[in-house]
Amino acid sequence: MCIFCDIISGKIPSYKIYEDDDVVAFLDNAKDVDGHTLVVPKKHCENMLDCDDETLSKVMKVVKKISNHYVNDCGFEGINIHNANNACAGQSVFHLHVHILPCTNKQPLSYVPEKISRHEIKDMYEKLKMTK
Amino acid sequence: MCIFCDIISGKIPSYKIYEDDDVVAFLDNAKDVDGHTLVVPKKHCENMLDCDDETLSKVMKVVKKISNHYVNDCGFEGINIHNANNACAGQSVFHLHVHILPCTNKQPLSYVPEKISRHEIKDMYEKLKMTK
Repeated sequence: MCIFCDIISGKIPSYKIYEDDDVVAFLDNAKDVDGHTLVVPKKHCENMLDCDDETLSKVMKVVKKISNHYVNDCGFEGINIHNANNACAGQSVFHLHVHILPCTNKQPLSYVPEKISRHEIKDMYEKLKMTK
Repeated sequence: MCIFCDIISGKIPSYKIYEDDDVVAFLDNAKDVDGHTLVVPKKHCENMLDCDDETLSKVMKVVKKISNHYVNDCGFEGINIHNANNACAGQSVFHLHVHILPCTNKQPLSYVPEKISRHEIKDMYEKLKMTK
């Protein structure tokens, strides 16, 4: 039982903006931002963390295609891309979805995270680095 | 003159978390969120809109790799991914960069866009759809 799998199959109706063999995009029903779009792979995965690289590439190719369509053809002037992974990041539906949030110069929209850091950058570097 | 090209080349120092032939990741110096990481292609492009599909795929593969490292090896429990395209979306450096914003269950972090919609979803659908 996955609400996005049901939207992909058509069992649950949606405003589908785009569809190909592997990816579907439909309008979010949050009514927060005009043109708020969700791009999802047809193949179910929980989020980006467990998604295979090929599927992730296909999803991002569509994210880019739709974003360019919104800017070039639909009157938008900027695009925010957002994706949440796991509950503490705000993920509520556990089927990978990438948010497209379009905006205009008259109605800008940006994401500035709250200040919640507790550690020095150099200490985080020692903890996180994958380089030798 | 691009500050991220200078970071990639090492002309400007940074805390590099990861590097391969095509992609570099380093810690953001905003000091807002512990582990705030930027993933950038070595090849300069302005943002996702003008980035070729192959480069975008390479960047996202690294975004996923680092995100899994943060969750599996570094004590984080969730990841927000963010990318701004053009000034009205809050983009300030015009070299494609994908933000990785890690979080934990004790210190969650989510993105809820402000309510700025003016149009009905079905009207936006008519304007935006790429399906027939």
